[in-house]
Amino acid sequence: MASRRGADVGTLVAQAREGSPRAVARLVTMVEDANPALREVAATLAPHTGHAYVVGLTGSPGVGKSTSTNALVGAVRARGLRVGVLAVDPSSPFSGGALLGDRVRMQDHATDSGVFIRSMASRGHLGGLSWGTPQAIRVLDGAGFDVVLVETVGVGQAEIEIASLADTTLVLLAPGMGDGIQAAKAGILEVADVFVVNKADRDGAQSTVRDLQGMLGLAGHYADADRWRPPIVKSVAARNEGIDDVLAAIDAHRAWLERTGGLRVRRRERAAREVEAIALEAVRARIGDLRGGAALDTLADQVADGKLDPYGAADTLLREAGPEASA
Amino acid sequence: MASRRGADVGTLVAQAREGSPRAVARLVTMVEDANPALREVAATLAPHTGHAYVVGLTGSPGVGKSTSTNALVGAVRARGLRVGVLAVDPSSPFSGGALLGDRVRMQDHATDSGVFIRSMASRGHLGGLSWGTPQAIRVLDGAGFDVVLVETVGVGQAEIEIASLADTTLVLLAPGMGDGIQAAKAGILEVADVFVVNKADRDGAQSTVRDLQGMLGLAGHYADADRWRPPIVKSVAARNEGIDDVLAAIDAHRAWLERTGGLRVRRRERAAREVEAIALEAVRARIGDLRGGAALDTLADQVADGKLDPYGAADTLLREAGPEASA
Repeated sequence: MASRRGADVGTLVAQAREGSPRAVARLVTMVEDANPALREVAATLAPHTGHAYVVGLTGSPGVGKSTSTNALVGAVRARGLRVGVLAVDPSSPFSGGALLGDRVRMQDHATDSGVFIRSMASRGHLGGLSWGTPQAIRVLDGAGFDVVLVETVGVGQAEIEIASLADTTLVLLAPGMGDGIQAAKAGILEVADVFVVNKADRDGAQSTVRDLQGMLGLAGHYADADRWRPPIVKSVAARNEGIDDVLAAIDAHRAWLERTGGLRVRRRERAAREVEAIALEAVRARIGDLRGGAALDTLADQVADGKLDPYGAADTLLREAGPEASA
Repeated sequence: MASRRGADVGTLVAQAREGSPRAVARLVTMVEDANPALREVAATLAPHTGHAYVVGLTGSPGVGKSTSTNALVGAVRARGLRVGVLAVDPSSPFSGGALLGDRVRMQDHATDSGVFIRSMASRGHLGGLSWGTPQAIRVLDGAGFDVVLVETVGVGQAEIEIASLADTTLVLLAPGMGDGIQAAKAGILEVADVFVVNKADRDGAQSTVRDLQGMLGLAGHYADADRWRPPIVKSVAARNEGIDDVLAAIDAHRAWLERTGGLRVRRRERAAREVEAIALEAVRARIGDLRGGAALDTLADQVADGKLDPYGAADTLLREAGPEASA
């Protein structure tokens, strides 16, 4: 359909590809708002996607994530590459905005049109990070950014989700935060492609490195030559120290992924999760719209009264919300 | 179908209703494992459900949640009522088990057949707590428990989800944990039906109460006479002090819900979320099964290559996974 909205989307995508930060920002806002025109945005962007390299960055509060992101942005720009940053806050469905003001974060790169920084709330959407974040990554990819950095606090499931979105996942730690034990507990060994011990000028940095080495040693599967063994890199992001080493570790991981075919597998997985999240959200919307929202309420009443079981109710809903109801 | 499995389910439900803790435990395990026979379990249980009163209990680590649960179980039992406890751990999809050993928790009530206690991991299922927990509540309800206590750590979205499952939600705080500020931030004002300041023999208890009163005062909507104003109750659960006051606050909230019709609304909402979660999980399973799992991978490959946009891919999946594919 060459609707009026359609024309707008085409113009917006063209402007974003020409480097307009305003156009990129508007497209990301459309993702955040689950704007109905997203379908058209995605179709228009599709041929231009698949080029950006996605780096995830996670860690506990206080390890220096935004400082490290900032330093990495500078290092990537020094290579002449365009870089987009998505700072995702998974902590609360209430925030409705972002914890960190974009203006504060932007200050080092405010006048650089090769950098785009955006904080996003993950508003309790279906699947948490998995609905909006991949679509925002796709917007930046289609708009021609070479590298997309996705930063999120490592709490609960967020760090696992970030790893499923990224080509390379950095897990940041800092000395003396008890991260070693916490790391093992939360299973970050499974998600880290690169460990960064930031604030490495502090007491205890070497012991944090040793703890990590010990854990990696215990995890026997790294003896397998086909497996990537996460390097441990030290940095002091606030003084820009060690950032080139972090970048070199990302490069090494990328080269390994490309050599082994792992990059293709990761990207297929990422696309599969994205498609699945969009499909489920569409079903949820259809269910909510059935008979003006009354269908679910009527069935729920019967379930609450014990007259119907929830599986029977779910069957009825799905029969009524068949694919022909698709928007 | 009067399949062999069917016969087993009928027997199991009958045994659970006769008070067999082993049968109840097996039914809850079926929920945890997403056993295909759950559909039959739900249908068999349905006519017996709708009687249990569901109390949610949440709070930060260290406020005394399990001690309070334990004390409440004793108080409910003293009324001659049967009580089931679900301790849900939303913290990690990796745990695959529960943080707190049931044996440790059971010790006070180990020989009491009127008490059932079970720790459940929330294994990163679709929608977090929203898939398994309501079904486990339904099992305990159908098995004849008068009260079901659902306990969970108040982190991220878990406390909001627990509130959507419970008839009455208790938010526990303890003096000197900085909970006042944290509470406001996380929006627990929106989820608490009763505030419990536990460890009230400690310094700072009165100031925690005052902080809460201040916040409730600032939230102007409580001036509205039609709105429930959450009472603030003090307890020392480890010494069994104040537990009757907590129970009295639950009773008062229940009476208010029944008088205003709010109980019906909450239970319809809970059933609606449960039905929706089951429906979406069914769609996800169908998508996963399409052409032996190859359909999603093929589409994801095209999306990763920029040949197809994710919305188009989602449409194709939903068309293929039509309701006629229902199990």
